[in-house]
Amino acid sequence: MRQWPDFIQIKEVGPRDGLQNEKKRVPTKDKIAWINKLSETGVREIEYSSFVHPKWVPQLSDAHEVGRKIKRNPNVRYSALVPNLKGLDLALEAGIDGASVFMSASESHNKSNINKSIAETYPVLEEVIREAKAAGKHVTGYVSTVFDCPFEGKITPEKVIEVCDHLVDAGVDDISLGDTIGTAVPSQVEALLDKVLDRYSSEKIIMHFHDTRGMAIANIMTSMQYGITRFDSSIGGLGGCPYAPGAAGNVATNDILYLLHGMGIKTGVDEKKIEKAALFIQKKLGKTLPSKSLAYAVAQQS
Amino acid sequence: MRQWPDFIQIKEVGPRDGLQNEKKRVPTKDKIAWINKLSETGVREIEYSSFVHPKWVPQLSDAHEVGRKIKRNPNVRYSALVPNLKGLDLALEAGIDGASVFMSASESHNKSNINKSIAETYPVLEEVIREAKAAGKHVTGYVSTVFDCPFEGKITPEKVIEVCDHLVDAGVDDISLGDTIGTAVPSQVEALLDKVLDRYSSEKIIMHFHDTRGMAIANIMTSMQYGITRFDSSIGGLGGCPYAPGAAGNVATNDILYLLHGMGIKTGVDEKKIEKAALFIQKKLGKTLPSKSLAYAVAQQS
Repeated sequence: MRQWPDFIQIKEVGPRDGLQNEKKRVPTKDKIAWINKLSETGVREIEYSSFVHPKWVPQLSDAHEVGRKIKRNPNVRYSALVPNLKGLDLALEAGIDGASVFMSASESHNKSNINKSIAETYPVLEEVIREAKAAGKHVTGYVSTVFDCPFEGKITPEKVIEVCDHLVDAGVDDISLGDTIGTAVPSQVEALLDKVLDRYSSEKIIMHFHDTRGMAIANIMTSMQYGITRFDSSIGGLGGCPYAPGAAGNVATNDILYLLHGMGIKTGVDEKKIEKAALFIQKKLGKTLPSKSLAYAVAQQS
Repeated sequence: MRQWPDFIQIKEVGPRDGLQNEKKRVPTKDKIAWINKLSETGVREIEYSSFVHPKWVPQLSDAHEVGRKIKRNPNVRYSALVPNLKGLDLALEAGIDGASVFMSASESHNKSNINKSIAETYPVLEEVIREAKAAGKHVTGYVSTVFDCPFEGKITPEKVIEVCDHLVDAGVDDISLGDTIGTAVPSQVEALLDKVLDRYSSEKIIMHFHDTRGMAIANIMTSMQYGITRFDSSIGGLGGCPYAPGAAGNVATNDILYLLHGMGIKTGVDEKKIEKAALFIQKKLGKTLPSKSLAYAVAQQS
């Protein structure tokens, strides 16, 4: 039998990557109550909102207020998505601990998502990274569509590494590699990590899987076989796929916890508290979240 | 990068293991039309019904009529669940190509499911296996709850092997090991297959996963790493969990195909035809099937 890592670190991205794909607006006070619950689950990092312009993500237009009003757990790093210096200023005012910059490994997805070429994006992010580091903040660089792009298909590991290199040179602390549209299968994860881990240590790499086609848990297993110990996930599988409304989005925190705890791997996160926080937001949204572990828990209680 | 098998054989169990957990009765003519569609997808085996007493599974009480009326594709093995000699007689009359006998590796689950102790079950199945083999039929032995039992918890690999030994001695052609309640994580699959494959060749073993907590695809990956090349699955993830109504059941054929074809592994099965057959039964049942790949395909079309 294989040796598995002792501990896996989960970053809860539900309040940002999850909610930004939900059409129904969640009132600010409910978000605050919900993030306060998440703060007590044992997760060490919560990406709690986004400072992109409100017209792009109206759901998260209260990022500043939420940041000021949540009850901070000193053991949790509260991070937020930051697109540019203006966003960073607001995020710093709101009291973030970490800034997440983002771009795509696909030229056409980058263009579609942030309206700039990859080359035009670098200087903007470099500025944000420099200022965020100068302010003493942790900085994560998200690289999206690292496997497949909805517009141009397969993305090569070389292209992903080129983007990583720019972000690391600019000073990010770590890199989160995103299967943004949830298409990857384990052999693609192997092909990418074979090359990425030739260049970077596994501690620097976070894997960010979407479960759009039900492959995320298998991809996480494959990543762990490569020594990856950090994953992003969204409570209950909250969120969706902007390219296929109704399909699933981020892998569910509940499902990762079921996997890891079942394998005897520690996370520091309390499954029952995650379940309660998932049911809280499920009720607020009035929809059934896609996590199968959550659905099982609900079915068993009823 | 790892070497993966060239070909994986899928047995479609939707018409039996899937439907038996669906409360809404599907009219016989719809079942026949649906199985005829499944017959043209490229799957080599369809477990098309069950010859247990109709009072236990009213949904499948038309097993005889369905068997007589489906249009046989000569490339497909049509098998059915057979509990005893009486069931076998009916199944043979209905024209089955394969008989599936079944019992549990857990004493209490066996008792609950077939109202006999494990020791009392052996002679019944031995008789069925002998007669089915004498009639020239393929015989599969299902062993259920090979990881966890809803009543008594963990089941040891030794107990599973003890049951397998009895079935193999009695003459089954192969053994399907079932994660009946969908609790297993990959480390449990490793622990079981380490021992089972010490005793039996991988060709004799089929893995039968339920996706109740979203772990099935990861468990299939792990099984493939052990050389397993045969899996049971249910179209669209049709079916459920008798111990938690509303939770997911069998792993979805659609999700396995997405995995395998994405990894360049052949199955001989046409994903688009599987999708159409899944949508056919989804519509007849008036419910959304749990497969995430199917949900994605539907979302993309809408």
